[in-house]
Amino acid sequence: MNLLASPLLTDLYQLTMLNAYYAHGMRETAVFELFVRKLPPNRNFMMAAGLEQAVDFLEHLRFTSEEVEWVEKSGLFPLEFARHLEGLTFTGDVHAMPEGTLFFPNEPILRVTAPMPEAQLVESRLINLVHFESLVATKAARTVLAAPGKLLVDFGLRRAHGAEAGLLAARASYIAGFAGTATVLAGQRMGIPIFGTMAHSFVQAHDDEVVAFERFAETYPRGAVLLIDTYDTERAAEKVVALASKLKKRGIPVKGVRLDSGDLATLAKNVRRILDEGGLHDATIFASGNLDECRVRDLLAAGAPIDGFGIGTSLVTSSDEPFLDAVYKLQEYAGKPRRKRSAGKATWPGRKQVFRQYDAAGRFDHDILTVESDVQAGEPLLIPVMKNGRRLHTAASLDALRRRAAGQLAKLPERLKPLETAEIPYRVAVKPALRKLADEVDRMTGEIPALCK
Amino acid sequence: MNLLASPLLTDLYQLTMLNAYYAHGMRETAVFELFVRKLPPNRNFMMAAGLEQAVDFLEHLRFTSEEVEWVEKSGLFPLEFARHLEGLTFTGDVHAMPEGTLFFPNEPILRVTAPMPEAQLVESRLINLVHFESLVATKAARTVLAAPGKLLVDFGLRRAHGAEAGLLAARASYIAGFAGTATVLAGQRMGIPIFGTMAHSFVQAHDDEVVAFERFAETYPRGAVLLIDTYDTERAAEKVVALASKLKKRGIPVKGVRLDSGDLATLAKNVRRILDEGGLHDATIFASGNLDECRVRDLLAAGAPIDGFGIGTSLVTSSDEPFLDAVYKLQEYAGKPRRKRSAGKATWPGRKQVFRQYDAAGRFDHDILTVESDVQAGEPLLIPVMKNGRRLHTAASLDALRRRAAGQLAKLPERLKPLETAEIPYRVAVKPALRKLADEVDRMTGEIPALCK
Repeated sequence: MNLLASPLLTDLYQLTMLNAYYAHGMRETAVFELFVRKLPPNRNFMMAAGLEQAVDFLEHLRFTSEEVEWVEKSGLFPLEFARHLEGLTFTGDVHAMPEGTLFFPNEPILRVTAPMPEAQLVESRLINLVHFESLVATKAARTVLAAPGKLLVDFGLRRAHGAEAGLLAARASYIAGFAGTATVLAGQRMGIPIFGTMAHSFVQAHDDEVVAFERFAETYPRGAVLLIDTYDTERAAEKVVALASKLKKRGIPVKGVRLDSGDLATLAKNVRRILDEGGLHDATIFASGNLDECRVRDLLAAGAPIDGFGIGTSLVTSSDEPFLDAVYKLQEYAGKPRRKRSAGKATWPGRKQVFRQYDAAGRFDHDILTVESDVQAGEPLLIPVMKNGRRLHTAASLDALRRRAAGQLAKLPERLKPLETAEIPYRVAVKPALRKLADEVDRMTGEIPALCK
Repeated sequence: MNLLASPLLTDLYQLTMLNAYYAHGMRETAVFELFVRKLPPNRNFMMAAGLEQAVDFLEHLRFTSEEVEWVEKSGLFPLEFARHLEGLTFTGDVHAMPEGTLFFPNEPILRVTAPMPEAQLVESRLINLVHFESLVATKAARTVLAAPGKLLVDFGLRRAHGAEAGLLAARASYIAGFAGTATVLAGQRMGIPIFGTMAHSFVQAHDDEVVAFERFAETYPRGAVLLIDTYDTERAAEKVVALASKLKKRGIPVKGVRLDSGDLATLAKNVRRILDEGGLHDATIFASGNLDECRVRDLLAAGAPIDGFGIGTSLVTSSDEPFLDAVYKLQEYAGKPRRKRSAGKATWPGRKQVFRQYDAAGRFDHDILTVESDVQAGEPLLIPVMKNGRRLHTAASLDALRRRAAGQLAKLPERLKPLETAEIPYRVAVKPALRKLADEVDRMTGEIPALCK
């Protein structure tokens, strides 16, 4: 049994509400939309990811007999509740932005239309998947923009928040444009290219650094990347040059070196000089060690001759902003639009669509957010992905998603590409039809909005 | 097959090194220690957690035939390498601090003593588990210190980084002193108490807020907690009072209300007054919504009459500091102590022990960090947990770990309990025996340390 597919991967209040819905016959169609309320600091866009895992979760949603029995025996619910869970599957529709799509605040990236109990139950896991992958895809996309043409590799598994986070981060960063990951299981399970060389422990396990280098190079006669910062980086670079001429006679090239600590800009320049003077013009320099997109940008701006970067903790935890304000909100029930008006957390009601407008150069100009029926010119971003509980398309290949993401980044206005908040944010225009609907809902529920709309 | 137990949950460089170790017959005993190099800002201590998952991972370490075949066909390694993996299990010893133990920078919290390939392979997953659970246990312990006697519940699944993070965060925060979690699967799988009431969507699905309250209360006649901030919090509190007298006649109590937005301090006071004036003295007030330990402390300091708190995103992502500087470093190989001297990342060599010293009042006074053989007075914190690949004790109950954690927090010096960095940090004294060993290692490897020790 797959732990990660359990319908009990939910909050208890979903079950308490389900029980109340069943008790009161509330099984009408509900429409929920998943969106991010605001951009985190220093973000000019977000990138959608995680849809494939979300669809897979919905497609396989089913309580095992063991889980039903647990609910029965929990003492939290009347006995008949477990009977409802026994046959529960997801029979609804899903509309969503394809993975790799850039999106902005208040734009739904996924919409679920299903009988209330089904649509409610899946909230926690849908946010859990789409929130995290979108968080990392966004962070990775920033890195891609900061280091055009450089080899970027996810090194984050060890400090990812659990194993699933490590795997999903490898996937999300690959979609966003990373070359691959160090996480082997992501290679085996998802076909993501994997990268890896040696750690300090390999060097330390030898009495002599040169012996460690030589043994490693012999083991990988097509060319290895040697880690040179265990003791003294520049001295180690000189050792590599000396070793390279010895290895050359045996037909073994030195593919490159990795720097993992110290003043990387200065070290990279000095190491490059040492390698070049030693004739190792083709040997590349790969850098790692507490890097993020800002450090990478600064290193490149300082002229550091670095060919590739391993980015770990900051990527997989999105360390400067480890979460998005992602929510999944009821927009319609039993044919009536709904909205929440809690202070500072009001939402736009109804089934919505985002129509993206392009400028003459083919770049994003602005988006229009309105009710689905209020069709506008431009590209509708939400497309049907599930119908009656079944997926409409086979899963897109990671290659196709990478092309989508790269295409999106190419169409992003220049002012939104820097790593800091742009002076003029991307414009999301809310159409009168949507404002009118919000007013109608407010009148209908007989309440005056307490605070901001 | 359990995705989360795969030995391919590792970095590729572990496999490239393993291949080189096998190729060169390097299967001598290696000693690795897992520790945190420095305290994150605003932390005066860390709390160890995740050992149970780490031991479980080691105990079940085994390549499936499918995984061996994948390695064989990957084209990354010579054919004989896959043969080595086929029979690989973990045959080593583990020493560790019990979960719930408070620890400080540079103190090993887990030590692996095993043939080099086994000890190396498991690095990524061991850090992944122990780092994350310790991160969340630390964050949760801070919250426990900030809100003595209050009901604290983990609400974080939806914005946890994947499902495993949600489950492990529920576990780590429960160990640290939370009352439980909203994550149902954590209840089913680990027996952690689960909490949950209703969401805004339940209220929104009804045309009338009062009907929603009444239906929910009827469904839970032993007493429900009603969410009162969907439209107007204080008006909703008045509705609850009116409803309560109606429900009372039917023998249904109102257990409490939940506030999830707005100025919680003011709202809690006003709602308390409304409830009290309506005779609902026993109804509790539970608060949630973008809370962390600092907000909780400030609310209590402002006299907010709040009985419990649901803490989500900030807890499970440790949002102010979403990672620890946790590493797993080679300290000895083939009987010889080792150390890394990379700039800013130098480590203390050899097998070490931490001896905790207590003051007259039974509180932590300081710790002594030294080589294992340099036995000191005080409590040795690292104890044997695995021998020859088998666990020495059955898994400790979560109750026992909670008692350990509570005992540790009770013995923490007062100056280290506030949420900001203490003026005088906890002292970890490095003994001369350890300094001497570091100097010897430096002489042996013939290098002068580049930077700080």
